[in-house]
Amino acid sequence: MQSARLQRLISLFSRLPGVGEKTAQRYVLFLLTANESVAGDLGRELSSLREHLVPCSLCGNVAEIEGPRESGVPADARCAICRDSKRDAALLCVVARVHDLFAIERAGSMRGRYFVLGKLLSPLEGVGPEDLPIGNLVARIQADGVRELIVATPPSVDGEATALLLKRELLPLGVKLTRIASGVPHGGDLEFADPITMGRALAGRQQL
Amino acid sequence: MQSARLQRLISLFSRLPGVGEKTAQRYVLFLLTANESVAGDLGRELSSLREHLVPCSLCGNVAEIEGPRESGVPADARCAICRDSKRDAALLCVVARVHDLFAIERAGSMRGRYFVLGKLLSPLEGVGPEDLPIGNLVARIQADGVRELIVATPPSVDGEATALLLKRELLPLGVKLTRIASGVPHGGDLEFADPITMGRALAGRQQL
Repeated sequence: MQSARLQRLISLFSRLPGVGEKTAQRYVLFLLTANESVAGDLGRELSSLREHLVPCSLCGNVAEIEGPRESGVPADARCAICRDSKRDAALLCVVARVHDLFAIERAGSMRGRYFVLGKLLSPLEGVGPEDLPIGNLVARIQADGVRELIVATPPSVDGEATALLLKRELLPLGVKLTRIASGVPHGGDLEFADPITMGRALAGRQQL
Repeated sequence: MQSARLQRLISLFSRLPGVGEKTAQRYVLFLLTANESVAGDLGRELSSLREHLVPCSLCGNVAEIEGPRESGVPADARCAICRDSKRDAALLCVVARVHDLFAIERAGSMRGRYFVLGKLLSPLEGVGPEDLPIGNLVARIQADGVRELIVATPPSVDGEATALLLKRELLPLGVKLTRIASGVPHGGDLEFADPITMGRALAGRQQL
């Protein structure tokens, strides 16, 4: 009993992560009654999204390219961080996903650059060492003269396994390898910390 | 440190109800890596959304109009329910919002038509009786020869106040007025029902 166009739009919104049919419906009904420009602006931006936003060829972050784009991703697309000469090229932070890069940027204390792996080692999902862009990472380390590599993969089973793999592969390069701290989060209650987090908080204790 | 285009798209997604910056970011990063057609299709549908989906001139539901549209909402746009001759025109269901109409349609047992008020009586938000489309509702009741009017405004303070207002205004028309039941929801636990819901479940008890 709903119009085909409405159905189509609802099912497209339902493709977004975490969006079910009811949420998609709310979005569409909002866009139908909100300021007319919102749907139009969103439509325009989305139509040209994949033309102008591509992976950075150096780090995998989102890079913006201007002007019309030929077919395929340009080999020299650079994100704002890789283009920023004030960033310390000798400090490189390895993350699993672009989401994680954004989260670290929000903290505001990272003055180096990034390398996005794109995936984590995961025997269950059939992702082996050969599926990770280790070769590109090694090339980046050597080209930029990286002195410290911060491994910021998540403190999960896959994230830890990936960190160990990176250690094995990169230690011979003589680069200093560090791992982000894992422990009780800021504002967190010790009472509700799970045993593994609590164990890590104890093992990673530092001089007061 | 994010591209202007990315920022713009994230802030547009943040306009959607219940979507904050992080969720908007997830949506954009998904669209950047998903099948290329998703962003394009969504963009196209959104660009023409407000041109093809307009309020039904009879009931306020979403109506789809084909072909190019001149400026302004056409006076004779009809939704699929109002166009469906198998629907009982003598049974009219009054709802606050199109969302509620969709929820009732999902139940699948309503064989009549609808009337969307668009808002509820709300002294706090400055919505008085004169702000509700009572005149249009009366005209609809008379034009369609409505025999039963189901008041399906929500069982909230504003929804109940609106139901009482409708009773006062429509009783003189001689139409049968009914109100949807309020009580413990299906699958709900009596232990966790709030006192008002429990009171309503008791007051609305029916012969077994």
